[in-house]
Amino acid sequence: MLHVVIMAGGSGTRFWPASRAAQPKQLLQLAGPRTLLQATVDRLEGLVPLDSILVVTADRLLPAVREQLPAVPARCLVGEPCKRDTAPCIGLAALLVARHDPEAILAVMPSDHVISPGAAFRDAIRQAATLVEADPARLVTFGIKPTYPAEGFGYIQQGERLATTGPAAVHRVARFKEKPPAAVATEYLAAGNFLWNAGIFVWRASTIIAALAERQPECLVHLRTIVAAWDGPDRDVVFAREFAAIRGISIDYAVLEHAREVLVVEAPFGWDDLGGWSAVARQRGTDTEGNTVVGRHLGIDSVRTIVHADGDHLVVTMGVEDMLVVHTPDATLVATRAHEESVRRVVAELEKRGWKEFL
Amino acid sequence: MLHVVIMAGGSGTRFWPASRAAQPKQLLQLAGPRTLLQATVDRLEGLVPLDSILVVTADRLLPAVREQLPAVPARCLVGEPCKRDTAPCIGLAALLVARHDPEAILAVMPSDHVISPGAAFRDAIRQAATLVEADPARLVTFGIKPTYPAEGFGYIQQGERLATTGPAAVHRVARFKEKPPAAVATEYLAAGNFLWNAGIFVWRASTIIAALAERQPECLVHLRTIVAAWDGPDRDVVFAREFAAIRGISIDYAVLEHAREVLVVEAPFGWDDLGGWSAVARQRGTDTEGNTVVGRHLGIDSVRTIVHADGDHLVVTMGVEDMLVVHTPDATLVATRAHEESVRRVVAELEKRGWKEFL
Repeated sequence: MLHVVIMAGGSGTRFWPASRAAQPKQLLQLAGPRTLLQATVDRLEGLVPLDSILVVTADRLLPAVREQLPAVPARCLVGEPCKRDTAPCIGLAALLVARHDPEAILAVMPSDHVISPGAAFRDAIRQAATLVEADPARLVTFGIKPTYPAEGFGYIQQGERLATTGPAAVHRVARFKEKPPAAVATEYLAAGNFLWNAGIFVWRASTIIAALAERQPECLVHLRTIVAAWDGPDRDVVFAREFAAIRGISIDYAVLEHAREVLVVEAPFGWDDLGGWSAVARQRGTDTEGNTVVGRHLGIDSVRTIVHADGDHLVVTMGVEDMLVVHTPDATLVATRAHEESVRRVVAELEKRGWKEFL
Repeated sequence: MLHVVIMAGGSGTRFWPASRAAQPKQLLQLAGPRTLLQATVDRLEGLVPLDSILVVTADRLLPAVREQLPAVPARCLVGEPCKRDTAPCIGLAALLVARHDPEAILAVMPSDHVISPGAAFRDAIRQAATLVEADPARLVTFGIKPTYPAEGFGYIQQGERLATTGPAAVHRVARFKEKPPAAVATEYLAAGNFLWNAGIFVWRASTIIAALAERQPECLVHLRTIVAAWDGPDRDVVFAREFAAIRGISIDYAVLEHAREVLVVEAPFGWDDLGGWSAVARQRGTDTEGNTVVGRHLGIDSVRTIVHADGDHLVVTMGVEDMLVVHTPDATLVATRAHEESVRRVVAELEKRGWKEFL
């Protein structure tokens, strides 16, 4: 049976001050009226029932996640006691699902991407599940056709194309590539057989567990100890102790780059990882003056400006071009859009100054 | 005896969103830890006792004025039921003071200017009072030596110089001049005998009452009716009815431009009418990057920027130059400093849209 694992533990800092430690990107209404996490769950309707979804987040985010996903059963929401990258997260999810469904197929996905249309996404996941049903050894990844020489993504080099039925082209993975410098990214784009790694995976729970057992045996021992205590009184204590003892590592490093049967589905859907405020503007669109506004705004001689204001607060911009104004109840950011990539510097500076209330 | 009349009914819009209908410029801490009104009262220490000060404000501002001036007796705070410019305000104050002190000399001054040092100001007021004691017909104005061809001030042309003792030069007023266009202002500056009209006056209460009786007899009838009811049970009703019936007119138009014995004291003190945020920056000074900050601020690659934030709210600016960021709990303004003079347009636009909660 198909299960979905949503990874929702991210703590992005690019959307500060809208995003905070206690309210990271996936919990924000950046692209529309639903938060990115809510939209991720909405997108699964018709693919899997709600109780076949496992949301893995950070334990401090659990109350907010519960509030945002009231229809998802509480037992389907897992809060990691600390951050240990994607391999431990996925391994734990696989073990938890496999307890009740040893033949389970998992679709693993981030919670903070914008994907549409939903039907194309669901069809692609189904196609990947079919590939895995046909050969349980397969690990299926999803790649996005690059539209510019992005330096911020990992790349997947497509190998031999498979003869498959279904809407999407499927290739063997020739090679995974780290985030490249600009010149290399340009080469990838020109080559035409490189895709952005979307961080979406489909595989059998048993297969990824076996892969972790081979490549990360210590990690798997800790995870099995956690799962053995899952339904008992010591769950929280064991979870905290054992998870903290695991070395953090991504599933790409831990498994994918070493595996033989890795396929890549060329995504037949629109995708945006929403890497910053300009991506928000792209998703939300702009008015006739090039402004993108969420909240209450009065613009006078203001163009190409992004305004994001909480609640009923009024933001007035006058005489500004290519600016970014983000208002929250306790902090406001005013930056040029050219500095959009530097929003992380603000967070670093706040940490340095010990202004924890704004993190 | 010397009395001081502080005109505190202004409703400036240049400092929006810090200034509001319910909290105009004179009630703000723009130039320092004391509000402009508080600083105006502080400056009188040693010149007159607190119960010789009459603060005339708008009735809706009375509670805020009372709170800001706890040491001034409540009977010294007057709230006008509507706005009628300076002549009715000054006439009423003169009548109220003259009831108990028919020989009273009044020093009349705005509540929203920055003046220092206080000692020089007090000495200049005393010098003017001496001039009035010597000749009760005299109306004394104060002029500021212009430093640039300002278009926003009225000018006073100096005539014959008087042989007086005291720190300041005193001239007869040759002529009052309206706010001039730039070319004319440049001529005034070059001529060397034009001063900015500071809106500060010294005269006998009886003299200004007589002048109003001659030039604005109807106004004076209404004012006398108000004062006759001042200590009775109908004061508020009579004040509201009679004051509303007065035609609004400035003391300059009503009296000064027609009077014979008008003198001008060349101010021996520093003066700034704080016409906008750049004036605030001038008063408060700038840091090494040219920024002026009131409140909590983190600047990254930010220069020549004015930040004014309420309470503990954090404003972060990044990559900005020559900007103005004013944060208040319900509204934030982000503007280029080149648009500083256009802040009034924001208020006009808010009025047009009916967004009264932000006015």
